[in-house]
Amino acid sequence: MKATDGRKARGDRARAQILSHAIRIASRDGLEHLSVGRLACEAGVCKSNIQILFGEKEALQIAIIEYGVAMYRREVVEPALAQPAPFARLKALAEGWYAHVEARLFPGGCFMHALSYEYRTRPGPVRDRVEHYRKEARRRLIDLLQQAKAAREINSSADAEQVALELTAFQALANVAALMDDSGQFELARRMSRERLHAIQSR
Amino acid sequence: MKATDGRKARGDRARAQILSHAIRIASRDGLEHLSVGRLACEAGVCKSNIQILFGEKEALQIAIIEYGVAMYRREVVEPALAQPAPFARLKALAEGWYAHVEARLFPGGCFMHALSYEYRTRPGPVRDRVEHYRKEARRRLIDLLQQAKAAREINSSADAEQVALELTAFQALANVAALMDDSGQFELARRMSRERLHAIQSR
Repeated sequence: MKATDGRKARGDRARAQILSHAIRIASRDGLEHLSVGRLACEAGVCKSNIQILFGEKEALQIAIIEYGVAMYRREVVEPALAQPAPFARLKALAEGWYAHVEARLFPGGCFMHALSYEYRTRPGPVRDRVEHYRKEARRRLIDLLQQAKAAREINSSADAEQVALELTAFQALANVAALMDDSGQFELARRMSRERLHAIQSR
Repeated sequence: MKATDGRKARGDRARAQILSHAIRIASRDGLEHLSVGRLACEAGVCKSNIQILFGEKEALQIAIIEYGVAMYRREVVEPALAQPAPFARLKALAEGWYAHVEARLFPGGCFMHALSYEYRTRPGPVRDRVEHYRKEARRRLIDLLQQAKAAREINSSADAEQVALELTAFQALANVAALMDDSGQFELARRMSRERLHAIQSR
């Protein structure tokens, strides 16, 4: 192994260590007002090291988003997509969302819904990343609904765009309810999400 | 008029002038990191005057919430509740919500949905006010649905808690879509909200 490879591996480990702290802070307190000083303190590194590893604050913010998306993919999306058929994938994806919020994979609940609120009024590169992943999540739901329809697993009359919006809207509300300790509303949203999918299933 | 009355009236006018600026800033940028210095600059007053009129920052934050709630009541809730029957009130309330977001009564869309996201992870007196108004808004929807049911305007099988959650969930999603310039999703949420109420109407 060359010396530069060793340096790169150390840099990657240091980045990952910092991001694992950063995602917890950003999920709870937001990304826009993230304090690099506080992150350095919590991660046990020097502030200047964070600047060397990530560059400007915006690059750090985008790296945190990518890290959160990768966590969600690994914990929720990939296991769901490993199911054998489109409708089973869809159900696992919907269930996985509620399970990851309930288990506080991120302390502030769903990171993407929170970022959507935080950046809805803040145009720029960070919001562009948020919009990119919002669209990707919507597309994933719509694609699975259309595949389930093509496989005759769901009714041909089901409107993929509408069902995707409903499932996402229930999440947007449930994410606040979960953190406000309003478990009644969280459970009701989860039940309605299940019932919505059950209602369109072919009999 | 006594001298103290004159001072009180001047104080009330100064508070209202400051709050009319504060609500615009807080709706767009959030309430937690509101800068009193920036507010003073935009409102054209001294920072020390804001402190004299409102006291600590938390008291100012709560005053901004009350001001926003009063604006929403005046512009949306009161005209809707002036309708002659429960179902008409409910429809006007639902339509009024989409109209006020579309017209940017608040630059950041619905202030209460945004506050719910911002304070979901921040326990304390500010969040307690947010929760109070969240519950009030839910109660208002459920009461109108139950009144409409008692008046046989909607089907006896309609579940008031579920319909209220659906209408609120569509709003939570539409509020982001409106500000992300995703007018397709905003319009779809508005249409689904209308269709939901249409579907439960007695025939």
